[in-house]
Amino acid sequence: MNYKIALVPGDGIGPDVVAEAVKVLDAVGVKYGHQFEYETVLAGGAAIDAMGECLPQNTIDVCKKSDAVLLGAVGGWKWDTLPGDQRPERALLGLRKELGLFANLRPALLFEELAEACPLKPEIIEGGLDIVVVRELTGGIYFGEKGYKDTELGRAAYDVEQYAEEEVRRIAVVAFDMAMKRNKKLTSVDKANVLESSRLWRSVVTETAKDYPEVELSHMYIDNAAMQMVRNPKQFDVIVTSNIFGDILSDEASMITGSIGMLPSASLAKGNFGMYEPVHGSAPDIAGQNKANPMATILSAAMMLRYTFGLSKEADDIEAAVKAVLTQGGRTPDIMSPGKVSLGTKEAGDRIVAAI
Amino acid sequence: MNYKIALVPGDGIGPDVVAEAVKVLDAVGVKYGHQFEYETVLAGGAAIDAMGECLPQNTIDVCKKSDAVLLGAVGGWKWDTLPGDQRPERALLGLRKELGLFANLRPALLFEELAEACPLKPEIIEGGLDIVVVRELTGGIYFGEKGYKDTELGRAAYDVEQYAEEEVRRIAVVAFDMAMKRNKKLTSVDKANVLESSRLWRSVVTETAKDYPEVELSHMYIDNAAMQMVRNPKQFDVIVTSNIFGDILSDEASMITGSIGMLPSASLAKGNFGMYEPVHGSAPDIAGQNKANPMATILSAAMMLRYTFGLSKEADDIEAAVKAVLTQGGRTPDIMSPGKVSLGTKEAGDRIVAAI
Ligand SMILES: CC(C)[C@H](C(=O)O)[C@@H](O)C(=O)O
Ligand SMILES: CC(C)[C@H](C(=O)O)[C@@H](O)C(=O)O
Repeated sequence: MNYKIALVPGDGIGPDVVAEAVKVLDAVGVKYGHQFEYETVLAGGAAIDAMGECLPQNTIDVCKKSDAVLLGAVGGWKWDTLPGDQRPERALLGLRKELGLFANLRPALLFEELAEACPLKPEIIEGGLDIVVVRELTGGIYFGEKGYKDTELGRAAYDVEQYAEEEVRRIAVVAFDMAMKRNKKLTSVDKANVLESSRLWRSVVTETAKDYPEVELSHMYIDNAAMQMVRNPKQFDVIVTSNIFGDILSDEASMITGSIGMLPSASLAKGNFGMYEPVHGSAPDIAGQNKANPMATILSAAMMLRYTFGLSKEADDIEAAVKAVLTQGGRTPDIMSPGKVSLGTKEAGDRIVAAI
Repeated sequence: MNYKIALVPGDGIGPDVVAEAVKVLDAVGVKYGHQFEYETVLAGGAAIDAMGECLPQNTIDVCKKSDAVLLGAVGGWKWDTLPGDQRPERALLGLRKELGLFANLRPALLFEELAEACPLKPEIIEGGLDIVVVRELTGGIYFGEKGYKDTELGRAAYDVEQYAEEEVRRIAVVAFDMAMKRNKKLTSVDKANVLESSRLWRSVVTETAKDYPEVELSHMYIDNAAMQMVRNPKQFDVIVTSNIFGDILSDEASMITGSIGMLPSASLAKGNFGMYEPVHGSAPDIAGQNKANPMATILSAAMMLRYTFGLSKEADDIEAAVKAVLTQGGRTPDIMSPGKVSLGTKEAGDRIVAAI
């Protein structure tokens, strides 16, 4: 079959890591007889430099015409002096909204071989760590009304956190479905003791739970969740939360794995369409130097095969290949440790291809 | 001199720990010739049970008439079935607003003697940990307009995050003053790449920095801050942030010390008025059993002496006494470890009194 993929390499190490993911996808294509067709488009700083705007209409159009999007990274110090609302990162928000990517899946997985990089004590993460944060991605305070008004205390700026029932329901359904495929345990994180929008969130999630009698649902306040993530992360399996709380909590969850250079993500729309990208940033200091770790992007490509194309065997293959390279001792600089085999970006990609 | 203190023991272990703080304050009074006068009032679940509302007007009046407030804890499973907006915790929000407590100071301190309780690896916290989170406490999404409206996606609930220039300026001043008394290093945490209110926050903090040329100011996004708190907390000294981000970040910071039962807090108004309370909750399961750790409340009383009454020598004395009890090996159940001396709530209070 023919699969159309929009490539958005973006900035910094984005192009480096996307190139390796393409190599890996092609290897999978050869092995299984699939045809992956790519169209590369600009977004972020690269688009600002070339066309004066971070998210050109053509980029949106090409993404919409494709079956899936693979993104590298956007942003970098080069554009950090631009006003906040003109930064490259705005391209991400634009893509999420334009493509209807309401469900962000972020696995926080501890790779056994890299366990020593975890900042938590060994006894806390004994037996591994395997959490998926399901973050709402097109609603809440990110996309609510915002602006300025005059008040007694001077000019004020505001942002509206808002959730409608249907917005909550659809993300809850994604999370419950995910829980059913895993350990049937879901934690919904909110701030229902303070926020009206959280109270609605909680009631819709509770309502949705009726369709999933096998899933054990619990609710937790965001402040407590941020603590529990450090104290005892193994209590979590699937977490579902709002856009802003998910931003914070998924980053915290990534960090406790100790290997942010390894973590993929998927942002899904209704149907099978999705955008896939590594959790790490654009790391402009090492761009183009064959130093970046391509594994998070390669694992993002695996998520693409699984969620958008329904090719789970192929996805398993990629994941196994990454694991094999780690087991052989292959390490890019970010995860290097004494006695291991140092690999550049390209060599890491080659080894993963070889393992497929 | 005569100092008037409103006592709000609250729920669960609140009364247990406040009683010990009073013992300690009285010991300080005897030693230095101060007179502390107490008036005890109800708030939280205790007030709901006795008077049908979590924050009776009389409680507010008595607090306002006093020089400072010492609070134990509010809330508990007994009242957990009440609708969110009638829970005991609402009393906290009410007190903050009514008393104008806009600046919440939360030290996250690693007690050397309890370092093994820290969930982070020893190398990450080597040399100790000493952070103060300055959280804005009477603004933002906690107190912005909230409600319901109809939308295309069904009924929606909303909460407005809003900050006025003056609200940001006054909390920034508290944080810069704090930085000047410490290591002249301040991190302002926001989400200026997404929120208009964060952009205003950032510009006012930057503006305020001009009055503190010696302070090294940096800005960090909340998602990154939540990561850095785990990866390398020692990079932080004073942190200033909004109400909701401060709620999350200060709890995370408390947790990485590993000893939440030891951490005090201060909530300050304009002038010297303040409310002081431990960071831990009401722990209803051990209420009245002489098992609670009173040290956080006793250290909160020390903060009261320092910030509201200007009695820093006396405050130092209390802190030294708590430290002495730890050094002697005295431990309440929450911080007990093999080979140490087990203490009940009262015995811990007595030992601290003896050390004064
Ligand atoms: C860059 C920023 C706008 C973005 C977000 O806040 O969503 C990022 O932090 C993320 O999590 O993808
Ligand atoms: C109980 C709750 C309303 C409160 C808050 O969110 O401020 C608590 O978490 C705190 O930090 O004091």
